[in-house]
Amino acid sequence: MKIAVMGGDGFCGWPTSLHLSAQGHEVAIVDNLSRRWIDTELGVQSLTPMDSIQERRRVWKQVTGNDVEFYLLDLARDYERFKKWLLDWRPDAIVHFAEQRAAPYSMKSDVHKTYTVNNNISATHNVLNALVETQIDAHLVHLGTMGVYGYSTVGATIPEGYLDVKIQKEDGSMVDQSILYPTRPGSIYHMTKSLDQIMFQFYAQNDRLRITDLHQGIVWGTQTEQTRMHEQLINRFDYDGDYGTVLNRFLIQGAIGYPLTVHGTGGQTRAFIHIQDTVKCVEAAITNPPEAGERVEIFNQMTECHRVRDLAQMVADRTGVDIKYLPNPRQEADENDLIVANEKFRGLGLDLITLSDGLMNEVIEIAQKYAYRVDRSRIPAVSGWNRERASQIVHDPVKANLKAVS
Amino acid sequence: MKIAVMGGDGFCGWPTSLHLSAQGHEVAIVDNLSRRWIDTELGVQSLTPMDSIQERRRVWKQVTGNDVEFYLLDLARDYERFKKWLLDWRPDAIVHFAEQRAAPYSMKSDVHKTYTVNNNISATHNVLNALVETQIDAHLVHLGTMGVYGYSTVGATIPEGYLDVKIQKEDGSMVDQSILYPTRPGSIYHMTKSLDQIMFQFYAQNDRLRITDLHQGIVWGTQTEQTRMHEQLINRFDYDGDYGTVLNRFLIQGAIGYPLTVHGTGGQTRAFIHIQDTVKCVEAAITNPPEAGERVEIFNQMTECHRVRDLAQMVADRTGVDIKYLPNPRQEADENDLIVANEKFRGLGLDLITLSDGLMNEVIEIAQKYAYRVDRSRIPAVSGWNRERASQIVHDPVKANLKAVS
Repeated sequence: MKIAVMGGDGFCGWPTSLHLSAQGHEVAIVDNLSRRWIDTELGVQSLTPMDSIQERRRVWKQVTGNDVEFYLLDLARDYERFKKWLLDWRPDAIVHFAEQRAAPYSMKSDVHKTYTVNNNISATHNVLNALVETQIDAHLVHLGTMGVYGYSTVGATIPEGYLDVKIQKEDGSMVDQSILYPTRPGSIYHMTKSLDQIMFQFYAQNDRLRITDLHQGIVWGTQTEQTRMHEQLINRFDYDGDYGTVLNRFLIQGAIGYPLTVHGTGGQTRAFIHIQDTVKCVEAAITNPPEAGERVEIFNQMTECHRVRDLAQMVADRTGVDIKYLPNPRQEADENDLIVANEKFRGLGLDLITLSDGLMNEVIEIAQKYAYRVDRSRIPAVSGWNRERASQIVHDPVKANLKAVS
Repeated sequence: MKIAVMGGDGFCGWPTSLHLSAQGHEVAIVDNLSRRWIDTELGVQSLTPMDSIQERRRVWKQVTGNDVEFYLLDLARDYERFKKWLLDWRPDAIVHFAEQRAAPYSMKSDVHKTYTVNNNISATHNVLNALVETQIDAHLVHLGTMGVYGYSTVGATIPEGYLDVKIQKEDGSMVDQSILYPTRPGSIYHMTKSLDQIMFQFYAQNDRLRITDLHQGIVWGTQTEQTRMHEQLINRFDYDGDYGTVLNRFLIQGAIGYPLTVHGTGGQTRAFIHIQDTVKCVEAAITNPPEAGERVEIFNQMTECHRVRDLAQMVADRTGVDIKYLPNPRQEADENDLIVANEKFRGLGLDLITLSDGLMNEVIEIAQKYAYRVDRSRIPAVSGWNRERASQIVHDPVKANLKAVS
């Protein structure tokens, strides 16, 4: 198949592109390289030394003989060029990772809120709009997030996308309706993914687009079968307070002897998946499209749920590093349960990696290998969700820099 | 009160601004005048001769002695200027009409889809973002639409914003949840109002903004107590296939002897409200804000429901003009029921105008007075919702013009 990976230079996008290429698909990465610019803005970098996309492609070709094409294109801002590109390249499927993906970054300031909303909504809408306009019948696979449900997690199982409700009619009879499971996003980033859902619903209904939305858990790990093949194919690996995600951060902190930073009570329960499974799942989703005219296909792309303080304890036990409880910068419940249905997702026939599978050690080893690249001052999470939460944060070096500029 | 009316030069915005001014409020209109530009783009004009906003303000001052301020500002594109304006003017309440408001226009081409999404989402998000950033505690009153529910109308009563559902927990017990009534928007325009809802939910929850969302029915009529006060205060009045709305279009067509154009079977049921009530309702909403920390207040701002073919018959009986059934350019059900709860809205204590109140004659008289300004070729609706629907449309003069340009 011809598969376009929008955002194919990012943390999920790069290993997905390599996996798809390794499976024999013809792959084109379309990316504006914004994630590299954000590294520059924040003055942080991937824990792992990451080559340019051009160099990565050269190495991949050298190692496997496979070409992965690369197109520098801003999906959110350059609709007309994207449309032309689409008519030229004509993909059979499009994987859409091309959104700003960090909740803390999206809450950093009003500038970051505006950027995240405009970038993510325009990127998603431009893909949909262009598919209709060009009449290219590509299956769209989008990376969503379990996080859209936020406050909706009332201790009931979150189904794969849809909730069956009964609505009472005037004559007293009940009518069954299947609705998008209600979202209650907790950050601007999560809000954009909730908006995406409504756009997908519209375009599937009005224009018969074939769309799959993967509601993914928090990704952990960094390497996949392909990124391990050469030092220069290594995946990016974020440890900073904005882009680092919870389990990976704990593993890095454990590896370098930095106290594990738990926000609030650590009673938050979250869904997790290993990056190796992410890339396999995306391929499985691509090859199982819904029919034209069907509703959006939604998978809960996650393997297991854990409470944050339990993960911290697990990493503390493994590494001997202390746990430190900090004020929570996020406006969220101190404690929440999370039960997730993923039967449909498991029905794709994948053998999923769990935390017990020993891959945690690989993460720790990588972190130790590149420990010399860590700027410890960038580990704390410094983006407060609102004024009250932000007031508890001691120092934000990025905001301090921004102030110096303005 | 100090009230800012975003989009105060438009069809609802202008009479609302005058009404608020007449009630003794201090009013500032903030508008980018985009609706006047769209008239220019489409080559159509208001049936009523409409003066510039500057001239309108002068006449209003002359007639009443009241100032209505005007600020030319693009809310969607100029966040920084808006923020500065907000800090300077410091409104107690903001009425937000500043969105592209025609479903047919939003479906005209991919350019119009992009414009509607970017404009409406950025405008709404910029207001919310700036309120948080400036810490100005203004009550935000937004004009939404009953149309967000689209396909969700299953013959059950649509409540005012929220649906109580029961969700089964793992232990078999049921938990009650109140969720935003599920939307199923049928056009890009309606979709943007559905996205707005999610943004309002987020900002009310995360930042304790006080927000009221008015889910309005289709507005009919054109004049209010204030716009009748002087020929030059007259409201705009759209009859064309993109901006003209169903009952007003029938009344104009009846007045000038043009066959009443019913799309499909005319079995669509819609909610209606008179423009005089719109302006009173907006004021009532402004003065009944939710508390900070409460969920978004939602009113179903409508008076009565009617089936389109019944309205056509009513106007045909009154004017003697024939009814013509045309292919429906919209992707929608041929027939739908619509039952709307508006007890909360009626609780605001307004004496609502119904179709039987004789104001239909006023519309017909205005249409007859300005009949010489009608371009009959612009009456048909020419924006198809998708390829199949568009293929049934004979000729679209605007698209023909666009083709000549590109």
